[in-house]
Order: sequence, then C-alpha cells, then structure tokens
Amino acid sequence: MTRYALPDLNTLPADIQTKILEVQEKSGFIPNVFLALARRPAEWRAFFAYHDALMLREESGLSKGEREMIITTTSAANHCLYCVVAHGAILRIYEKKPLLADQVATNYRKADITPRQRAMLDFAMKVCQHSDELADADFTALHAHGFSDEDIWDIGAITAFFGLSNRMANMSNMMPNPEFYLLGRVPKQK
Amino acid sequence: MTRYALPDLNTLPADIQTKILEVQEKSGFIPNVFLALARRPAEWRAFFAYHDALMLREESGLSKGEREMIITTTSAANHCLYCVVAHGAILRIYEKKPLLADQVATNYRKADITPRQRAMLDFAMKVCQHSDELADADFTALHAHGFSDEDIWDIGAITAFFGLSNRMANMSNMMPNPEFYLLGRVPKQK
Amino acid sequence: MTRYALPDLNTLPADIQTKILEVQEKSGFIPNVFLALARRPAEWRAFFAYHDALMLREESGLSKGEREMIITTTSAANHCLYCVVAHGAILRIYEKKPLLADQVATNYRKADITPRQRAMLDFAMKVCQHSDELADADFTALHAHGFSDEDIWDIGAITAFFGLSNRMANMSNMMPNPEFYLLGRVPKQK
Amino acid sequence: MTRYALPDLNTLPADIQTKILEVQEKSGFIPNVFLALARRPAEWRAFFAYHDALMLREESGLSKGEREMIITTTSAANHCLYCVVAHGAILRIYEKKPLLADQVATNYRKADITPRQRAMLDFAMKVCQHSDELADADFTALHAHGFSDEDIWDIGAITAFFGLSNRMANMSNMMPNPEFYLLGRVPKQK
Amino acid sequence: MTRYALPDLNTLPADIQTKILEVQEKSGFIPNVFLALARRPAEWRAFFAYHDALMLREESGLSKGEREMIITTTSAANHCLYCVVAHGAILRIYEKKPLLADQVATNYRKADITPRQRAMLDFAMKVCQHSDELADADFTALHAHGFSDEDIWDIGAITAFFGLSNRMANMSNMMPNPEFYLLGRVPKQK
Amino acid sequence: MTRYALPDLNTLPADIQTKILEVQEKSGFIPNVFLALARRPAEWRAFFAYHDALMLREESGLSKGEREMIITTTSAANHCLYCVVAHGAILRIYEKKPLLADQVATNYRKADITPRQRAMLDFAMKVCQHSDELADADFTALHAHGFSDEDIWDIGAITAFFGLSNRMANMSNMMPNPEFYLLGRVPKQK
Repeated sequence: MTRYALPDLNTLPADIQTKILEVQEKSGFIPNVFLALARRPAEWRAFFAYHDALMLREESGLSKGEREMIITTTSAANHCLYCVVAHGAILRIYEKKPLLADQVATNYRKADITPRQRAMLDFAMKVCQHSDELADADFTALHAHGFSDEDIWDIGAITAFFGLSNRMANMSNMMPNPEFYLLGRVPKQK
Repeated sequence: MTRYALPDLNTLPADIQTKILEVQEKSGFIPNVFLALARRPAEWRAFFAYHDALMLREESGLSKGEREMIITTTSAANHCLYCVVAHGAILRIYEKKPLLADQVATNYRKADITPRQRAMLDFAMKVCQHSDELADADFTALHAHGFSDEDIWDIGAITAFFGLSNRMANMSNMMPNPEFYLLGRVPKQK
Repeated sequence: MTRYALPDLNTLPADIQTKILEVQEKSGFIPNVFLALARRPAEWRAFFAYHDALMLREESGLSKGEREMIITTTSAANHCLYCVVAHGAILRIYEKKPLLADQVATNYRKADITPRQRAMLDFAMKVCQHSDELADADFTALHAHGFSDEDIWDIGAITAFFGLSNRMANMSNMMPNPEFYLLGRVPKQK
Repeated sequence: MTRYALPDLNTLPADIQTKILEVQEKSGFIPNVFLALARRPAEWRAFFAYHDALMLREESGLSKGEREMIITTTSAANHCLYCVVAHGAILRIYEKKPLLADQVATNYRKADITPRQRAMLDFAMKVCQHSDELADADFTALHAHGFSDEDIWDIGAITAFFGLSNRMANMSNMMPNPEFYLLGRVPKQK
Repeated sequence: MTRYALPDLNTLPADIQTKILEVQEKSGFIPNVFLALARRPAEWRAFFAYHDALMLREESGLSKGEREMIITTTSAANHCLYCVVAHGAILRIYEKKPLLADQVATNYRKADITPRQRAMLDFAMKVCQHSDELADADFTALHAHGFSDEDIWDIGAITAFFGLSNRMANMSNMMPNPEFYLLGRVPKQK
Repeated sequence: MTRYALPDLNTLPADIQTKILEVQEKSGFIPNVFLALARRPAEWRAFFAYHDALMLREESGLSKGEREMIITTTSAANHCLYCVVAHGAILRIYEKKPLLADQVATNYRKADITPRQRAMLDFAMKVCQHSDELADADFTALHAHGFSDEDIWDIGAITAFFGLSNRMANMSNMMPNPEFYLLGRVPKQK
C-alpha cells in the first residue's frame, strides 16, 4: 500500500542493516519506518541520528513517556497514521497506561494527564500548528510548571522533528506494522 | 533577540567549528542557523547531515534553484522569517532572478516560473499544509510534468525537512543575518 | 471526571432502568452514555429512539459495520473521545477488523476500506464539516457506487445524529468506559 | 427544490397526522420540517420528542425567546437556511423584537441583547464550532451571569440538537415556508 | 451604539449636506452610512464617488439587482450587519423578490437564483475570501455564462469595495437604520 | 501578465494624465497601479482621492512610515504581490530601515518595531481578517499605547482601503514594477 516499495534488508548498507537487526531483535519485528526510509541511506542516517539525539537524550527534563505523548498528540493533529499507531504503542508501554494513547490522539484536553503535561502538550500543539505565533508568554506558561528552557527546546524539537516524520509518512503512504496496534494494551503474559 | 543565546564558536566541537569556518569562508559571514543549533551538537550534526543529503544530492531531477524555490515558498506559508530571507537570497543567486524570491514568498501563484515549477510548488504546499490529504492524483499531476517518483520524494522531503527548520526558527526566534536581505538583488561588482 | 454526576441506576424511571439492564446484560457493563443522559429522562428516551431508528434500521443499504465506520470517522473529526473509543470498539467487532477503527479515526483516507466505503466517508465528512456546501454532485458520486437516496439519507442522518452526540459528550466531559478500549482487538478466548 | 419529495399528509401514520394538523391549526400552515422528516416515521417521532423535551421544558432558566436566539445564531453559523428563517421568525415573535433575528444571524456580537445573553451565545457558538475545546472556564463564565449547570446543559443540548437539524436540512435541501420570512416583522393587525 | 458619534447634518460641508438631503428625500430617511462616514469629508467624497462609479455604471452587464446580490452575499460572509440589512433591503426592492436577501445572506448556494447568478456569486465569494487563489479558470467559468471581462471587473470591484465598507462598518459599529429591515418585504400599500 | 491590458497614457483623460506624469517625474517610473486602474477613469479618481485622503492626512497620529507598515503587513496576509512589493519599498524609504519590509511581510510578530507599532499591527490584522470580532477591548489596547480614536480610524481605514486594493490587484493580476523590488534596500549613491 506504500507508494515507495520497501527495500530488501539484504541490499542495504551494512551499518543500516546492523541497526535494523538490533531493532528487530529488541522489538520482535522491523517497524516499517526503518525500511521505508532506508531506500535513501544518507537520509536514513540523518533521520535516525536526529531521532536518537532527541529521544535518547539523557539529561532531558522530559520523561521518555512524555516525549512519546508529544509525538502521539501532534501526529494525530497531522493525521499521520504511522506515527499515531507506532508511537501510541510506545507511549502505552512507557507510561504503563493502556488508555492514554487513544485519549491524547483523540483529544488531549480530555486525557488523563497532569496539568504540567497538559501545558507541555499545549505548547507542542502550538509549535505544530501555529509556530509563527509563539510568544514569550508561551515560555512563561511552561516555566510556571517547572520546565527549563532546555526542556522547552526538547518539546519544540520533538514536535518539529515528528512533523517532518508525519509528512514523510503521509507522502509515502507508510503503514504501521500490525503489531503496533495491540502493544501495551494488555498485560504481558509471563 | 533570539530566545537561546548563540554559543561562542570557539567552544564548539572541532568538527562543527571546521564546517562553520568553511561556510564563513565561502559566504563571508556565518549564517545564524549554524550557531543557533550548535548548542546541541548531536542535533546540529543530524540537521546538517539531513540538509546536505537533500540539498546536495547530485542525481536529483530538481535543480538547486528549484529546491530553494520549494524552501522559500513553504517557509513563507509557515511565516518563518529566517528561512524566507536566507533561502530567498540563495534562490535569487541560483536562479539569477532578483525578483523571484519576493514573488514566491508573497504568492507563488503569481511568480514568474514555469508550469512544471508551479506544479512542483502546488505539491510542496500540500505536503506543507495538508499532507494527510495527499492522494495518487497528486503524484499523477507531477508525473505529467516529467517528475519521477524520486523527484517527488525530493519535493516532499525538502518541504518536510524545512518544516522542521521553520518550527525550530520560530520557536527559538532565530533572526536572519542582515547580509541575506540584499544578496542576489544587485549584480556583482567587479 | 464528567461535569455532570451520573445518576444512580435505581433512581431512574422503570423503562430506562429496564433498557439499561438489558444493555448491561448484553455488554457486560453499562456504557456511560446510558447513565450520563439519563438525568434527563425525556431527552434520554428521544436520544435512544433516534439512535435505534438509525442504527437498527433493517432495510438500510449500509451494513452495521459501515454505520459504525461513519460514526468513528466523524466523531474523530469532532474530537469526541467517548464516541471514538466506544464506536471504534463496535466497529472492530462488526467488521472483525481489529485495525480498522484506529485507521479511520486517524485518517480515513488511509484506511483499509473499499472505494465504496471511501465515498461514503467522504460524504459523511462533508455533512459533518461543511454541510452548507453539499451539492447534487455529492449525491451523484454516491449513486455511482450504488448507494440509493435512502442510503444517502442514512449516511447523512447518522452523521448528523452523532454530531449531536459528540457535542453532548464534549460538553459534559463524558468519558468512555475502560472496557471499550480493548474490545475487538484480540480474538475472543473460548 | 428539496432533494427528497415531501410525503402526502394523508399517507402518514395517524399520530404524525394528528400532530401535524395541530401545528397547522396553530400556525396557519405546515412548516416544511414536519413533512420533510415524516418520510421516516420513527426518526420523525424521535426528532420531535427530542425537540419538545428541550424547547418545551418548563423548569429551564432560559426563556423561550433565548432558546430561539441560540437556534438562530448557531444555525446561521451552520448556514442552514431553513432554521435561520423559521426560528428567526419564532424568535421575533417570542421576543417581540422585529430586528433581533437578522442581527443574531448576521453577527450576534452586534445584536441588541443583554450581556447575559451574549455570554449564552458565546457558549453556544463554542459548542457549535469547537466543542472539543470546551473547558471549565467556559462554565465559570456562564455561572458569573447566573446560569446554573442545568441551564448550561440546555444551551449545549439545544445547540447540539439543532446542529443535527441544520445538517438534515442542508443535506435534504429543505426550504423554509414563505410564510416564515415575514412573521413577527410587522405588528399584528386587529 | 456606534463607536464614533454621528455628526450633526448642519455642521457638514455644503456638498455633503446636499447629497444627504437628496438621499433623505428619496428614501424617507438618512441611511446611517451617510452620516457615519461624513465626519471625514474627504473620505466621504471618495467613498461615495467610488460607490456611484460602480453602482450607477450604465454600461454594466450586471443588473442593479445583481450588484446588490453580490453585496448582500459577500457582506454576510464578512458578518457586516449594516450592509446585509441595508443592501438586502435594496436587493428585495430591485429584484421584487421579498425572500431573496435572506436566502443569499444565509446560504447563497440555496438561493432562488439563475445558474448565471450562482456563477457570479461563486466568483464574488472567491474575491472576498481567497483573492490570492483567483486563476484563469475562474474567468473561463464566468465567460461560459456570458459575462464579459468588463462584467467580471464589476463583480470583483463591487466585492472589493464593499469589503472595505464591511470593515469600516464593523470597526465603527455602524448600525443599520430600523427602516431597512422591513423594506421590500411587503407589497407597497397604495 | 496582467489580465486587463494597461491603457496608453496618451488616451487617458487630461486630469489623470497630469497626475500620472507628476508621479512619474517624482518616482522615475509609473507604478503599474496608476495605469491598471485608469481604464475606468471614474473609479481611478475615487481610488486615488480615497488613497490621498488617508495617506496624506496631515493631522494623523500615525507617521507615514507606520501607514506603510500597515499596508505591507495586511497586504502580505492577503497575498497581494503588487502591494507587498510596492508599499514594502515605500516603507523602507520612509523608515530608513532596509530590512523592515521583509520582516513585517513574513511575520510582523518578529519585526524590529516598537510595542506601540506591534499593537497597531495586531489591530490592523484583526480588521483585515476578522473585522466581525472587533470589540471594545481592541480599542482599549490601542488607547493604552497612546492611540486616539482618530488614529484607530486611520489604522482601520487604511487596512480596509488596501484590502480593496489587494483584491483588485489579485483579480487583475497586477504586477509590481521591477523598480520597486530594490528601492530602499541600498544607500543612495551621491
């Protein structure tokens, strides 16, 4: 269904193969974004370097769950099926809240989140939809919830980066792997 | 005026310093984006790797001028002052058309461009503003002008990448260097 | 979390109690909408009479799954958490497609549906968002897919009725029962 | 001009005939909505039961004129010709203000109404156009004007119900009876 | 209620007084726009010179009723109470159709007009709301209905001029004279 | 490229010729708007009378540069190429700020202007885009910056008048003279 055929894993450069196989081992499957972007290795490397710089950043004031919350919320605003389903799954897992992803994707104003997280998502949505209107007052509102300027950079950069991702997925008609839909919805069986 | 102080060049990692000095030598000044993003080296490296993968790609069916045309048009739609002024300057230089940047920034439908370029910008604007509505018909319209699927990927990816850039610039209040405003407007003196 | 306290089932009029108990027996729980609206018995009776007239209509050319598809899609456009989660669950069950609800809720243009269903949802979305612009051409487009004028009435009326429901749920902050989130996602255990 | 032929009164179920004849006796003509919806008796009965539950509710803190004000204002926002003309007429009659309906239909912010009614219409317009953004502050604003939570439910429910009505009228191209246009504009002759 | 006090007729320059008295004699009252703008005589003279150049133009292919139709339709889109009520009245009189003004003001797509007039209003609405998107195809569509380029200029210029008028009326809170509301709705008594 | 051929200067009425020759002598070229509108002498005279009444008004609290700032900002919002380029040039000259026009055209919120000018442009943009929502609070906000009600009338009237001009330029595809693009960008040579 994707508009650009997924490349065969074996034809990819070694560094990309290695990273993809690591992901597959960890997740049990290869998320489609890894293959969909790999047809352009230089873009692939930059994309995942950017991704990791933002999402694995240790010193961030945002928890990993909060970063996924930003992605799921703004990707829903951009109507990106891949990111809503894939990052919604990761959000459920990190936050251990099986209902949260559907809530923020449908209407984050009704989600079961803290006032601090609500302020974070208000800012992310403004970056996503009206970044030209961002004003000092938007920063002040986040400071009031304890966010530092570095945290705010994280909120904005994650939103901006996944705005790129949403547009690539929408353009190329990237479809989420079926596995994502159910992840984090039911307690793991032992 | 920027919300995040620009770092001192001498404090930056060596690889970043080197690249910035190269740009400075070539341009005669350091475009602010190079310093503004350098406060986060990992993000800086990924950003410029992505930038170069798209903008320096040799085999693209888009000329370098056309890529700048996409950036100037969509950055204007996102009301990003930095990108409109900086990339508008580069557009004027590549296309050797001193009026073109102001035209596409104000209303690309009135710009002095070819029907093929008009179709390219229609697609870019849809990626920028309504990527969820992209349909096969949008690809067909570009094929009719001789764009290949790889060219379309370029149009979409450049739009998506600079959508990220626009949001970072709007959030951090990045201001264009004064030098950009006049570049390409007057014939070079010998 | 709802803005209007749910009434105690035992305090409700007998006819309403009876119907609610029937639903509870069938579903295993009482969907919140039944209690949330019951604080106004006359409105409750009219609401469910209208609901049943549309949703249980035997002679409709729309399958029950298609009716739920309309509801899930347009409720997502209205950002109604209750209806997206509750009717998304019923959609999954009727269509036996565990992925479909998340697809139409995020971007129905990417959902795994037939061209006929796509046309049905295009019409529903126009009723939902721009009903003043409905024109004869919109009817013609549906006739081409075999929909009769009665079927079109069904599409429009279901959209209109759940537009009412979406607004009531948003105003009263009605929350979906936790049970809905998982329904239809995993095969029933025997 | 309507897209669905109006049924012959004599072919309708007895209960519907009776109610329609009562309306005709009272008004001097049969408002088209009574015939337009009667082609589906079950929907007709639910529609008018809902209508009466909201519009005839005795204990409401909203006057009958205020309820018609809500309908005329929000129906204009939905560009529903039938409801603007028909309910504008009833509004003029109830409020004994021949200019009021044209005012609220064109721009309720300029209408000759009380600050309390202005707040009521602000809330109704938010239910009509952005119900997903309704927040506690919207309720507080109405409380400050003396509206109870029950009154607010009335405002929201009337708006939601006529949003349904607007969409049905727009879809079926229901036209207002010519008699409505002039009603309440000139003093009754004795 | 207007934000700028209406000047006393006797204090106005002689040429303005003369013209206003002529209008008063013809209409039976002084439409508020004549006094509201007269506080700035130079602007008043330019405004009415422009108005007359467009509205009294003898050689136009648009009837006087059609010009009022354009004004009423686009002024409703701009939510300008003064122009909708005042020009709606004149429209009823010129076209001798007492229902027409309310129709075009609420939803011109449902109004009792010819296909040629519908095309005229589609163009006017595009000039009013999205003039930057006007394309050759919009001119072709009007040519197909027999409109000349001069007629199209009239449609566009009338829309543009009353867009100015709408904004002045909205800014200054200009209210329509009560007389306008009823004009043209009832047959003249002899 | 304009849709309506520019008339030959020699065929125009004497008063129009005289004024155009004066402008040519002063500017060194004939701005296209003078010829483009001259095909309709009565409209031309009214247009420039209105223009001069607003733009040459001696007693205004707005500087000439501020008036051009309003025009450039709102014309960019209307995507009018002619007015952005022509009035951007005049803005640069009056304010002696070569960067200012590109700033307000792209995003006036980032422009190098005073808080008073920012408030002025906020009001102008509301007149331009949502004049129906103008409220007393908008006047109060300007009073706080020392604007009188007459100044506010100027802001609103200039915005409204150039909204007319923008629509005429967009409809007729009026193109800015090439000379405008560079005016005010480089210091005059002696």
